[in-house]
Amino acid sequence: MGSGGFTIPGESGHEAYTLAMAEKWGADVVRDSDGTKLSPEILDAGLGVYSTVCLIREDNAWARAHQDTLQQNFLMSEPVTAAGAEVVIDPLATYSLDQFRLNTSDGVEFWQVFDRTTGEEISRDAWKLDGDRVVITGTLPGHRYTVNFLATRLWEEISMYNHVTNDWGDKERLMSVDPRHPAAAEHLVEWLEAWCVANPATTVVRFTSLFYNFAWFWGSEADRPHHYADWGSYDFTVSPLALRQFTEATGETITSEDFVNAGRYTSTHNPPSAIYERWMAFVGEFVRELGARLVDVVHRHGKAAYVFYDDSWVGIEPYSGSFEEFGFDGIIKSVFSAYEARLCAGVPTQTHELRLHPYLFPVDLEGKPTFAPGCRPEDDLQFYWTRVRRGMLRARIDRIGLGGYLSLTEPFPAFQDAVADMADQHRAIRDLHLAGEPAVEPVTVGVITSWGALRTWTASGHLHENPDLVFNHALESLAGQPYRVEFLRLDDVAANGVPARVDVLLNAGPAGTAWSGGDAWLDPALQVAVRTFVAAGGGFIGIQDPTAVHHGLGVFQLSDVLGVDRDPGDLARVMKRSFALSDSALLADGAEAPAPRGTGLFLTRAGVEVAAAHGDAPTVTVAGFGDGTAVYLANLDSNSAGQRRLLANAVQVAAGRAVTLPRADDPRVDVTVFPASSTIAVANASGDAVMASLPGLGELSLEPGELRLLPQA
Amino acid sequence: MGSGGFTIPGESGHEAYTLAMAEKWGADVVRDSDGTKLSPEILDAGLGVYSTVCLIREDNAWARAHQDTLQQNFLMSEPVTAAGAEVVIDPLATYSLDQFRLNTSDGVEFWQVFDRTTGEEISRDAWKLDGDRVVITGTLPGHRYTVNFLATRLWEEISMYNHVTNDWGDKERLMSVDPRHPAAAEHLVEWLEAWCVANPATTVVRFTSLFYNFAWFWGSEADRPHHYADWGSYDFTVSPLALRQFTEATGETITSEDFVNAGRYTSTHNPPSAIYERWMAFVGEFVRELGARLVDVVHRHGKAAYVFYDDSWVGIEPYSGSFEEFGFDGIIKSVFSAYEARLCAGVPTQTHELRLHPYLFPVDLEGKPTFAPGCRPEDDLQFYWTRVRRGMLRARIDRIGLGGYLSLTEPFPAFQDAVADMADQHRAIRDLHLAGEPAVEPVTVGVITSWGALRTWTASGHLHENPDLVFNHALESLAGQPYRVEFLRLDDVAANGVPARVDVLLNAGPAGTAWSGGDAWLDPALQVAVRTFVAAGGGFIGIQDPTAVHHGLGVFQLSDVLGVDRDPGDLARVMKRSFALSDSALLADGAEAPAPRGTGLFLTRAGVEVAAAHGDAPTVTVAGFGDGTAVYLANLDSNSAGQRRLLANAVQVAAGRAVTLPRADDPRVDVTVFPASSTIAVANASGDAVMASLPGLGELSLEPGELRLLPQA
Repeated sequence: MGSGGFTIPGESGHEAYTLAMAEKWGADVVRDSDGTKLSPEILDAGLGVYSTVCLIREDNAWARAHQDTLQQNFLMSEPVTAAGAEVVIDPLATYSLDQFRLNTSDGVEFWQVFDRTTGEEISRDAWKLDGDRVVITGTLPGHRYTVNFLATRLWEEISMYNHVTNDWGDKERLMSVDPRHPAAAEHLVEWLEAWCVANPATTVVRFTSLFYNFAWFWGSEADRPHHYADWGSYDFTVSPLALRQFTEATGETITSEDFVNAGRYTSTHNPPSAIYERWMAFVGEFVRELGARLVDVVHRHGKAAYVFYDDSWVGIEPYSGSFEEFGFDGIIKSVFSAYEARLCAGVPTQTHELRLHPYLFPVDLEGKPTFAPGCRPEDDLQFYWTRVRRGMLRARIDRIGLGGYLSLTEPFPAFQDAVADMADQHRAIRDLHLAGEPAVEPVTVGVITSWGALRTWTASGHLHENPDLVFNHALESLAGQPYRVEFLRLDDVAANGVPARVDVLLNAGPAGTAWSGGDAWLDPALQVAVRTFVAAGGGFIGIQDPTAVHHGLGVFQLSDVLGVDRDPGDLARVMKRSFALSDSALLADGAEAPAPRGTGLFLTRAGVEVAAAHGDAPTVTVAGFGDGTAVYLANLDSNSAGQRRLLANAVQVAAGRAVTLPRADDPRVDVTVFPASSTIAVANASGDAVMASLPGLGELSLEPGELRLLPQA
Repeated sequence: MGSGGFTIPGESGHEAYTLAMAEKWGADVVRDSDGTKLSPEILDAGLGVYSTVCLIREDNAWARAHQDTLQQNFLMSEPVTAAGAEVVIDPLATYSLDQFRLNTSDGVEFWQVFDRTTGEEISRDAWKLDGDRVVITGTLPGHRYTVNFLATRLWEEISMYNHVTNDWGDKERLMSVDPRHPAAAEHLVEWLEAWCVANPATTVVRFTSLFYNFAWFWGSEADRPHHYADWGSYDFTVSPLALRQFTEATGETITSEDFVNAGRYTSTHNPPSAIYERWMAFVGEFVRELGARLVDVVHRHGKAAYVFYDDSWVGIEPYSGSFEEFGFDGIIKSVFSAYEARLCAGVPTQTHELRLHPYLFPVDLEGKPTFAPGCRPEDDLQFYWTRVRRGMLRARIDRIGLGGYLSLTEPFPAFQDAVADMADQHRAIRDLHLAGEPAVEPVTVGVITSWGALRTWTASGHLHENPDLVFNHALESLAGQPYRVEFLRLDDVAANGVPARVDVLLNAGPAGTAWSGGDAWLDPALQVAVRTFVAAGGGFIGIQDPTAVHHGLGVFQLSDVLGVDRDPGDLARVMKRSFALSDSALLADGAEAPAPRGTGLFLTRAGVEVAAAHGDAPTVTVAGFGDGTAVYLANLDSNSAGQRRLLANAVQVAAGRAVTLPRADDPRVDVTVFPASSTIAVANASGDAVMASLPGLGELSLEPGELRLLPQA
C-alpha cells in the first residue's frame, strides 16, 4: 500500500534482513537503539537515519572528572521515633548507595529537620551534622523525626535500570551531569558539536531526552528496591546552585519541604503547590534556553532534531505553551494507549511519531517472553495497535516505528506481516487526516484538573502503571471518541469561569488528587463558576470522587449539582434516600455500568435518575440542575468497550444532545467519519470478531482488530 | 431445675396459659407490655408484678393543654443553592409535619443561618422570618444556604413508630412533655404518685425510660421516611428554656450549630465537641435530679423502681459515674448480643435484667413472621440466646425475661420447652457467678475511644443496626472472652498516660469516628502516651483505621508502632514494601483472617510479621515496638467464631502472654472456668453440632447451642 512514515530499528550483522524488512514495511527511516549499531551498509541504504543521544550521560569520563556537577535531589530520611532527648539519624539509611551519596559539602543550609508528630521544623541550632549522621538534640520521646537532605546521584537512572535488569556486572555505570553548571552546559554543547561532525549519515538527532529524568529513588532493601517513582515529578532538577538561582530570579525561597512534602514528594498525582509550580516554570525556562542551543547545533549541521517524550523529559513540557521555543522538528512518544497517541498528536511541532509496542526485546516490560519460541508477538502487536489506533483515528500521527533488536523478529513471519499491515493502516489513516479532519459531535468536553493544559492527555505515565486510576480511564475512553477535548485548570475556572466554548465539564479521580482537585474545591469562586455554568445549561460529568474534599455539608462540594454525595463516615446515622432504577439513555447502545467503587454513595435530593446501583449505593445517575445536567459515574474502566460507550453517552446526556454521527450498535467498534475524503473508518478495537450494525451501512462483519474504510453513504 | 430470675409477660384473657407458662419457666415475676393488660387473676397469682410507665407521654390530655411544654429540638433545613440575591427557605420542607411544628414563638434568637459554601454564619440582620419562611437577603448566587431552627415535636417517637407500623389510624397520637418546665415536672411527680396509689399490686415500676428519647427525625417523602436516628444523641433535650438555663448554669453559650454540625447532628459515632459534652453533663444533672424524685415516689409506695435502658434513656447514662444517684433498684436492657449483656451486667445497681428476643410479636424487627404457622420461633430464640449467653457467662445477669403477647406462643410447644431450658441455663449460670467470679487471663484490655467509660460495652445501638461497624464486632468478640476490659477516653490517656493496670490497648473503627478517635490523634501528648506505653512493653491492637487522621507522614498516626499505614491516595507513587506471609500465633487454634477492608494498606518498616494479606495489602500483622507488641487487623466480623478467636489471639500476642486457661480447639465453643464452683462451663455458641477438644477434658460432642457444665479437672 505504499511506503513512508515508518521507522525501522536497524541492526548491524543483520543488514540483509534490515533492508528486507524496511522494504516490506515501507520504512523510510532507520534508527539505532540501546545496544544496537548501524553499519555502513545500513546507513548507506538511502533511508533517513535517526541517532539516539542522551547528552547528560554521554561523556562519563568528563562526568567522573567533574563530580561537583553531578545531579542532586532532596530526600527525606526514614522517620525515627525518639526514645530520649537525642536522636541520631543516618539520612541515607534504606536508600541505594549505588544511586545516592550524601552531599555534605554544599547546600547544607537547605537541609531541614522536622518533628513529624507536631509538624514543626526543628530550629537549626538544635541539630548538627556529625560526619554522615544528623544529631538532633532536645528531642521529645515518642515524637518522630526526619531529615530533609541533599544527595548527589552517582548513577543515571535509565543506565541503572538497564544495568541491574540485564545484570551487566562490571559494565561502566553512567553518571548524569547537571547542565545548570555552566561548565557542564558548555561541555554538552561542545560534545554535540563534535558528535554531529562525526556522524554525517545521521539525518535526525533523537534526544533521549534532555537533562532531567523523572524522579526515581532506589532503595537498599530487598523488600523495597524502589522508594518513589513519578513520571512527572521535578525532584531531580534540584541542586544548591538551582535553589540559589531560583531565589535570585524570583526573590522567593523554596525549601526542601516544598519538594519533600513529608515524604509524598512532588508527585504529579497530588495537587501542586504554587511555589512548586513556579519552580517548574523556572526549570522550564532553563531547559528551553539550553535545549534551544542544542537544537541549534543540530540544525547548523543540517540535521533535524526530534525529542523523545520519556526518560529525561522533565522541563520539556510540550503543553506549556512555550514548547516551540526549543525548535524541535518532531516529537516521539512511546505509547500503549489511545490517550498517548492524542498526547503526541497535539504537540505543536512538525512531526509526531509513535514508538509502538512490543519493543523488540526478548521479554516485555513485565518480564514475559515476547520473541521466544512459541510466542505470538503478532498478538501483542495487535493488542496495543487496536488501542493506540483509537487515538490515531481522531488526531493525526505522522510516523510510527519500532525499537530494539530487529533480528529477534526474523523467526516470526506472522509478526512481519502484521507490522506490514499496521504500517499500511497507519499510512491510510494519516492520509485521511491530511485530506481533512474527522467529523466531531458539536460538543467540547473540558477536563478540569489542578494541572489543566500542562497535563493534556496524560495522568502521568502509562495506563498499566496506574491501572486503577479512573482519570486515566476517562482519558482513554475520550481519546477515541468524536468530541473536542480541552484541559482546564481549576484555578483558571475559579478566576475566569468556564470558557464559553466548553459544553461539558468532566472531573474525575480519587479525592485529594490533582485529577479530582482536592482542596481547590473549597474555593467558593470555583464552586460558583461551575454551578453557574451548569445552571445556565452546561453539562457536568463527575467520576469517582468529583469535587471531593471532606468539608461543609459532606464530601462532594457540588453534591447539589450532582445529586450525589459520599458519606465519609460522619453521616452514618443520617438516613439515605431510597430509589428505584430507571431506564436511562446512559445505558443505551451497549453501554455497561461500571463496577462499584468505594463506599457511602447516596442521593442528596429528590429527582435524581438512578441508572445503576450497587446495593443501596447509586453508581450511575443523571440529575437536572437549573437548565443543565449532571451525570455521576462511580467508576470507569476503559478496558470495557461498554464503559467507554457509557462515557460517550454521559457526554451526550450532559450536553443535552442526541448523537448525530453514525455509531455502531456494538461499542467495541469505533466509527470515524472523514468528510473531506467521504470515508468512514470502521475499526474493531477488540480482539473479537464482531458483527456490528451501522446506520446507513447495515451489518458489517469485522475480523478481530480489523480496520475497514468505507465510502460515506 | 428450679425457679426465679425470670419475667413472663402476662396477658389477660389467657390467664391459665400465663400461669402454666409461669410455672414451666420458673417465672417469679409477671409484666405487662405495650398492648397487654394484667387481669386480677394474674396479679393475684403470687408473682411479683412489673408495670411499664412512660411518664412523658402518659397524660396526653395534660400535654395537649400545655403545648408550650412539648419537647423541641434543632433541625437543619435542606440546603438551598442561591440563584440570585435572595433565598427563601421553608425550614420544615421534607420533614414530617406529623412530628414537627416550626416554633416561631420562642427562641428564634437561637436560630442560625449559614452559607455552607464558605462555612460562615449569615449575620442576623441579613435574614428574617416571614411567616413560616426564612428570607435571606444579599445571598451570593451559587452558594448554598441552610437554616438551623427550633421545631416543637407533636408526636412522641415510639408512639409514632408503633402507630405508623401497626396502622393504628385514628388512635390518639401521644405527645411528649419536657419536664424542664417546672409545671410539667410537677405534673409527672403528681401523676406517678396517683398511679402508685391506683396500682397496689405492682411491685416494680419499670420506667420506659425517663424523659428524652434518642434522636429520631422523620421525613415527609416516601423515599426518605426518616432523616436521622442515633441511639445516643442528645438532640431531643434542646429547648429555649434549656439553652438559657445552660448559659445561666455554666456561663457558656451553646449554639444551634453545636447540635446541627452541618447536618451531621451530634451522632454518637462522631467525636463529641467539648461544649456538647458539657451539655450532656448539664442534661444529666437535670435528669438525675428529677429522676431521683420519681424513684423516691415509687419507693415511698413500697415498690421497686427499674429503668429500661432504651427508648427515652437519654441523660440516664448508667456509666456516667453518677447513676447511683437515681436510686434505681434495677436496670433492664433489650439485648441481641453478648456485649449488651456485658453492658447491663456492669451497671452499678442491684438487679440486672435482660429482655430477650424474639419479642412475642407476630413479626420480628425486620417484618419477618415469628409466631405464624410454619415458623420455628425456638430457632430464633436459640440464635439470640447463644449470642447473649456468651456475655452472661463472663458477667452476672440476675434476671431474664420476655415481652409481648404471651398467647402467641401457645401453638409452639417446642418454643415453650426452649424457653424453659433457657431459663434453667440462666439460673445455673447466675448461680455460678453468685458462688464466685469466673477466671480470667491476667490481661486487662483498655478499649480507647473518644467516649471512654461513658460508652462502656456499646457503640450506640444494636449490632444489626450497624452491621459493618468493626468496633461493635470487637466489643462483641471481647464480650465472651476471659479478659478484664476497661473503656478509656483518648483525652484522659493524653493527659494522664495509659493506666498502669492496662496491658493491651485496643483502638478500632473507621477513620474519623468516635471509636477510632479522629482528630484526637493529632495531639502529640496522646501519641507519646501510647508510644511510651508500648515501648515499655505494652500491647496495642489496631483494627481497621486505628489512630487514623490524614496528617503528617500518612494516616495512622501510630504507623511506627503498628508497622502499617493506609495510603489515602497521596502516597500513590511512594513504592510499598513487599512481604512474605509468616506462620503466626495470631492464626492459631482455628482463628480466621478477616475479609479485606478499604484500600491502600502497606508496611511502614522492616520486621513486621504479616500473617494474612489481600493482594499487596497486609491485613493481619504483628510488629515489635520497643519492648511491646502491636497487632493490626484490617477488619473483624464477630459473626465468625474464627475471627472472634483471632481477636483473642491478638490480645494474647499483644500482651506477650501464652493462654493459661483451657480453651477449645474449635472457636465456636466458649469455655468459662468458675473456680469457686470447680466448674467449667462449655458453651457451643453456634447452631452446629460441634466435636471440640479441651485440654484435660478430651473430646466433647456438643449439640447445637448446648451448654454443658463439667467438674473442673
